[in-house]
Amino acid sequence: MSTEGTELAEIINGKAFSANLRAQIAAEVAGLPYQPGLAVVLVGDDPASKVYVANKAKQTVEVGMASFEHKLPAETTQEDLLALVRRLNADPKVHGILVQLPLPKHLNADEVIAAISPDKDVDGLTVVNAGRLAAGLPGLVPCTPLGCILLLEDRLPDMTGLNAVVVGRSNLVGKPIAQLLLQKNCTVTMAHSRTKDLPALCRTADILVAAVGQPEMVKGDWIKPGATVIDVGINRVPGAVEGKTKLVGDVAYQEAAAVAGLITPVPGGVGPMTIACLLRNTLTAAKRLEGR
Amino acid sequence: MSTEGTELAEIINGKAFSANLRAQIAAEVAGLPYQPGLAVVLVGDDPASKVYVANKAKQTVEVGMASFEHKLPAETTQEDLLALVRRLNADPKVHGILVQLPLPKHLNADEVIAAISPDKDVDGLTVVNAGRLAAGLPGLVPCTPLGCILLLEDRLPDMTGLNAVVVGRSNLVGKPIAQLLLQKNCTVTMAHSRTKDLPALCRTADILVAAVGQPEMVKGDWIKPGATVIDVGINRVPGAVEGKTKLVGDVAYQEAAAVAGLITPVPGGVGPMTIACLLRNTLTAAKRLEGR
Repeated sequence: MSTEGTELAEIINGKAFSANLRAQIAAEVAGLPYQPGLAVVLVGDDPASKVYVANKAKQTVEVGMASFEHKLPAETTQEDLLALVRRLNADPKVHGILVQLPLPKHLNADEVIAAISPDKDVDGLTVVNAGRLAAGLPGLVPCTPLGCILLLEDRLPDMTGLNAVVVGRSNLVGKPIAQLLLQKNCTVTMAHSRTKDLPALCRTADILVAAVGQPEMVKGDWIKPGATVIDVGINRVPGAVEGKTKLVGDVAYQEAAAVAGLITPVPGGVGPMTIACLLRNTLTAAKRLEGR
Repeated sequence: MSTEGTELAEIINGKAFSANLRAQIAAEVAGLPYQPGLAVVLVGDDPASKVYVANKAKQTVEVGMASFEHKLPAETTQEDLLALVRRLNADPKVHGILVQLPLPKHLNADEVIAAISPDKDVDGLTVVNAGRLAAGLPGLVPCTPLGCILLLEDRLPDMTGLNAVVVGRSNLVGKPIAQLLLQKNCTVTMAHSRTKDLPALCRTADILVAAVGQPEMVKGDWIKPGATVIDVGINRVPGAVEGKTKLVGDVAYQEAAAVAGLITPVPGGVGPMTIACLLRNTLTAAKRLEGR
């Protein structure tokens, strides 16, 4: 049975939402007596990373922030990279520091991330920010989880008592999203590859978050009618035309959209929120650092 | 209908388990080329705290560790308390630091806890240790959650795929237990006062952890037959004889024991594990600090 053409769910348009968020950030930045600054460190020549860093820099400037790009050669030593991070920690013009991952293999990414001041850690990757999130203290939340919760808050202003199921337990996405949903008073279940009868569990979810990195793993009949589905997956798969590829999420979109009440598409759902949330974190960090 | 006399569950004897754990710790301490040391800081004259600190000191000495007690007057200033914590951080004979809570009201407990070196934070209260736990990194886990997971590991060596429901989302107990159960590959649900139909949710649990501080809130018919029930509650309620009190857990024990497969009693279940886990954390901290 084809479900094409029977789409019922309302689409959560992350592209429009993120454009609006960036406009709000720009308006707030324009009214500040200082200019928030974001430093991005890129080591080596990975083509995808270069495109992504250029895009970040463009959007940073567009909201009126200062963008500091540090492009280092692939053979940069650990010591030199750590020294740069320490200089950025001490630089009062820099409110946010992002080290583009992955780093070349001879470098120790964990040590580099640990060297970033938690108050400038706009990617929310440090242990201190993970601890602040777990403890419900103000901190900097990883950008993709923050993007998901902003999209949800917009559509579901009161999530109290809703059953949320998060599929995937990565430190970067699944676990922080679970913490944020708990703060919103959801009953939160953390599911993963070892979960038994995942389809049945997913069918109990009022809010279903898929963050597993498996193309179209979550099927239409895993979804409770009317549920809100947040698809964090971005998977490149072969397209209809030979030699071409396309992007799909962790959710079988057409099937799911026929059952869900609200759903994020891929592309154009959670993806566009990431850089917008990076800018929001930079603004948050700047206000805290300048407010001291 | 009375369920008295129909007890089916096997009792998890935390008193015996903790005595055995302390004996193991003592044996390991005896073989070390250094003596682990635990510093306990007590401010003021709260009678319950004094009893508890004396008990900790006694058990510390019994396992062959050094016990450093710092008893400060109730009028101690924040500055003096912070200065003591910093001296203990720097003292190579001290591997664990515990500041007995609650502190007198004029003192800022959050600031004092934040001053404790995360590597000596044997209560697992610092933001850094919360972050390490969330990230699955080696750290120091709060004592009561650690006690629960040790009792569970002993009876359920493989928890993979089991449904665990944690009722209560405190930073000190509920949230860390959820993280530890997730590390054991359970599917973990965090429930709380805003959860809808808590009895039905509890009935899905293979492992049910009650950590709410509500006397006998979890009833027998909330429990799946054969489930493992961990009762973290310690509530003092009026006893059968007027003027006398008794201790009960968060679980209605007689009813629950008629349904569960394994259950911790109150007293004598999770409670005795706390000090034993404090000593275990001190040993863990000492080995890491001395191993550097």
